[in-house]
Amino acid sequence: MARTVDLNADMGEGFGPWKMGDDAALLGLVSSANIACGAHAGDWDVMAQTMGLAVTHDVGIGAHPGFADLQGFGRRRMNVPHGSLQNLVRYQLGAAIAIAGSVGGSVRHLKLHGALANMAAEDADMARACYDAALSVDPDLIVMVLSGTAQQNAVEEIGCRWAGEIFADRAYNDDATLVDRSLPGAVIHNPEEAGARIVDMVRAGAIITASGRHLPAAIDTVCLHGDTPSAVGIARAVRAALDDAGIGIARFAGRRG
Amino acid sequence: MARTVDLNADMGEGFGPWKMGDDAALLGLVSSANIACGAHAGDWDVMAQTMGLAVTHDVGIGAHPGFADLQGFGRRRMNVPHGSLQNLVRYQLGAAIAIAGSVGGSVRHLKLHGALANMAAEDADMARACYDAALSVDPDLIVMVLSGTAQQNAVEEIGCRWAGEIFADRAYNDDATLVDRSLPGAVIHNPEEAGARIVDMVRAGAIITASGRHLPAAIDTVCLHGDTPSAVGIARAVRAALDDAGIGIARFAGRRG
Amino acid sequence: MARTVDLNADMGEGFGPWKMGDDAALLGLVSSANIACGAHAGDWDVMAQTMGLAVTHDVGIGAHPGFADLQGFGRRRMNVPHGSLQNLVRYQLGAAIAIAGSVGGSVRHLKLHGALANMAAEDADMARACYDAALSVDPDLIVMVLSGTAQQNAVEEIGCRWAGEIFADRAYNDDATLVDRSLPGAVIHNPEEAGARIVDMVRAGAIITASGRHLPAAIDTVCLHGDTPSAVGIARAVRAALDDAGIGIARFAGRRG
Amino acid sequence: MARTVDLNADMGEGFGPWKMGDDAALLGLVSSANIACGAHAGDWDVMAQTMGLAVTHDVGIGAHPGFADLQGFGRRRMNVPHGSLQNLVRYQLGAAIAIAGSVGGSVRHLKLHGALANMAAEDADMARACYDAALSVDPDLIVMVLSGTAQQNAVEEIGCRWAGEIFADRAYNDDATLVDRSLPGAVIHNPEEAGARIVDMVRAGAIITASGRHLPAAIDTVCLHGDTPSAVGIARAVRAALDDAGIGIARFAGRRG
Repeated sequence: MARTVDLNADMGEGFGPWKMGDDAALLGLVSSANIACGAHAGDWDVMAQTMGLAVTHDVGIGAHPGFADLQGFGRRRMNVPHGSLQNLVRYQLGAAIAIAGSVGGSVRHLKLHGALANMAAEDADMARACYDAALSVDPDLIVMVLSGTAQQNAVEEIGCRWAGEIFADRAYNDDATLVDRSLPGAVIHNPEEAGARIVDMVRAGAIITASGRHLPAAIDTVCLHGDTPSAVGIARAVRAALDDAGIGIARFAGRRG
Repeated sequence: MARTVDLNADMGEGFGPWKMGDDAALLGLVSSANIACGAHAGDWDVMAQTMGLAVTHDVGIGAHPGFADLQGFGRRRMNVPHGSLQNLVRYQLGAAIAIAGSVGGSVRHLKLHGALANMAAEDADMARACYDAALSVDPDLIVMVLSGTAQQNAVEEIGCRWAGEIFADRAYNDDATLVDRSLPGAVIHNPEEAGARIVDMVRAGAIITASGRHLPAAIDTVCLHGDTPSAVGIARAVRAALDDAGIGIARFAGRRG
Repeated sequence: MARTVDLNADMGEGFGPWKMGDDAALLGLVSSANIACGAHAGDWDVMAQTMGLAVTHDVGIGAHPGFADLQGFGRRRMNVPHGSLQNLVRYQLGAAIAIAGSVGGSVRHLKLHGALANMAAEDADMARACYDAALSVDPDLIVMVLSGTAQQNAVEEIGCRWAGEIFADRAYNDDATLVDRSLPGAVIHNPEEAGARIVDMVRAGAIITASGRHLPAAIDTVCLHGDTPSAVGIARAVRAALDDAGIGIARFAGRRG
Repeated sequence: MARTVDLNADMGEGFGPWKMGDDAALLGLVSSANIACGAHAGDWDVMAQTMGLAVTHDVGIGAHPGFADLQGFGRRRMNVPHGSLQNLVRYQLGAAIAIAGSVGGSVRHLKLHGALANMAAEDADMARACYDAALSVDPDLIVMVLSGTAQQNAVEEIGCRWAGEIFADRAYNDDATLVDRSLPGAVIHNPEEAGARIVDMVRAGAIITASGRHLPAAIDTVCLHGDTPSAVGIARAVRAALDDAGIGIARFAGRRG
């Protein structure tokens, strides 16, 4: 059984005058932060401020690149050739590395955002293109993947360091995909329920689906959505439940291959 | 007398479907290229393509950050606090470093663009803020400054590596500022005239003003504007004139302090 | 003495996924709304939603154009030629007219935003360029101006319909300019104080400065800042104070010439 | 047989400092211009300049809205809900109407751009959503549709004024779709061949496919691509061929229903 697990949340998703989520509260609860890199959210000032707070809270910094679509917050699928996706990833990662350094931190991991992540979860070639590009900038980067998806296939093929992620607040189908948001029970709003599920899954080393099946899975980190009103409440409940179960919160070390 | 001098031009100033200037021709003539970093021009694909060509031509790669103003091409003055300017510089430089690495190159120098450069040429504190930020990302970077301006004061104060720049196609006032574009003779359109002036100035180690005065100056590199129709013609003439005068074209080594 | 006065607030200042201010609450309190037009804030969806709510609340719709600077929220001064400013105003106003029509409303007034407004308050020629452009699109538009500034000079010169505006929460200098935000007392945070001041000024038909001087002024509308946390509280207090004083809230009719 | 036919081209596709195509030359050859509206290309200054030239050349002005994707030039498919597409169309059309008025012109027709057009050509519901939105802004607008596609189905359902369009430089499949650009012969580069084809199709009142089949079609206007190097040459050849065949060039009147 795992003795520790990582908690992560998306952060730094403001832009210019606009705020999103309660980063300050979440930074006291998570061990890793995925920080937007300026294309779908997060300008250079927001990045510097958020990364500075992450350093203060000793939270691991991740680059969180997305499509260049501010209005759609990177959630609209776009057809972009792999070569261009690679440049997109390198550009945003390079910018994040420079900003992180200026606040005394460094970029430890990478997680794809929004539609880019969803498309890569279905298409290992696309995932691999993105990850290869990121690793060419920093071969020691830990790639955070959605457990059991094509993203995981890609990192296993590459043989890089990686960490598997599950969601605290989403129900799973029997094929390890997420239950569609339009269906009842797809999103878990009850913090205690979210906490109990996560403890069960971490103990089992498996995704437990809505129907009760256990799908063995790499569970290195648990995603807390940063942009929902209940994010802080769910984060607290998950932390408390893990604590009660004797499971510590710590940054993932990164699996290999 | 200088045995060699550097020739530089701004490049990679397209965006998405739009082209600007004849980068391919200029890359055969210059020894350093200042490459736009995505804020005023140049997206990640344009950057990768241009930097790849620079590597092929063995031309030194410079990051060329500007204000976040695509429509105005970074030529409109904006009031931005120093802390935000520093993030702007770090972000664009970090992105450039990552893209350069992916094409087998590296960022060797930094030059400010457009209104950002003009403002920094008048305000050493602002110049220093930008340069300090860039050097925090890479302390070995060579900062290209407009000779005799507040930009030069800033690098001298910092004590970093730097290179002084003069213009091939612009007339100078007696205080080393450029003759206003609205005045007759401000812009030199005749390639031969441009070539002869540059040879004279490099030999003299001085800016020669419109009135004929010699202002001793650090002349390490000569700027050829990349976005004018006559750029390639002037570049050829300057190269030829320098060649005739026994002055080679080579990347600046970088002065110190 | 005025029997009625208009209350206005800036609204529709979200963008994509980002919200700003409590438009729903303010729409129940004001009689006119200045709605961002997509350049400094407000995309087409935010505009349609906000204008639809304004129609529901029977609040007058104003176009609120600003500089094309999302990151800086239109608050950074930019040097833009008058001809280009005119195109900027026409573009944003035309877009606003089309969106307003689609929700059963229409654009009744125009107010400049942020740095564009501040620059026009100091420069009647610039104000006139912007207003002439707007009136060429719709000659019946009511132009909202900062009372006693160059904006007012411009509308008087043009001879168009206009309305004079004062601020509920800002102290005035003896020359009718605003006390600099960095000085103590510049911003009024106390809702009751804001309410009492506004009643005094509307009754007096004058701006009452921090030193107590009365500057006769066109007071047709009172601005409630929509993007501050205290906006709704100040709006309620101003309404209540006006109500107690027997002054109704109603849209400005528009002065002439 | 048709006595006249319209020639159209996309124009105003520059942005800020960037140019695209030879609008000045094309404006002397076409009878209708589809002018970008600021989302995928064309800022307010480019729009004003291009529309002003169109008025001078007595060329009909069309609004040419596209996805908000400058970097991708509106050519990348994006999943956008119909309600948001409608706001996108209204916004861009309203802006175009305002700018056209300022140069003494008016917007006469509407044509969708790039990926938005391609998606609407396959999906009549999406096309109808866009067209309904445009017609709510101006019910007299003539909608330009790709003949024989779902775009045509949409205008027939709506019962609005419309004009059918064929391409001068693209080969057709037997189901009236375009031959994929990756196949040999898909794009016609020879100006004389393009001219002869167009005369044949206009005379026949039918699309003539690559295999020689005749598909009866509404041919009111012929599209000349403005952004290819050969555009002006093809435009001249098409005009000359039509002239030789006794077919005049004139703006479409607009079919009904």
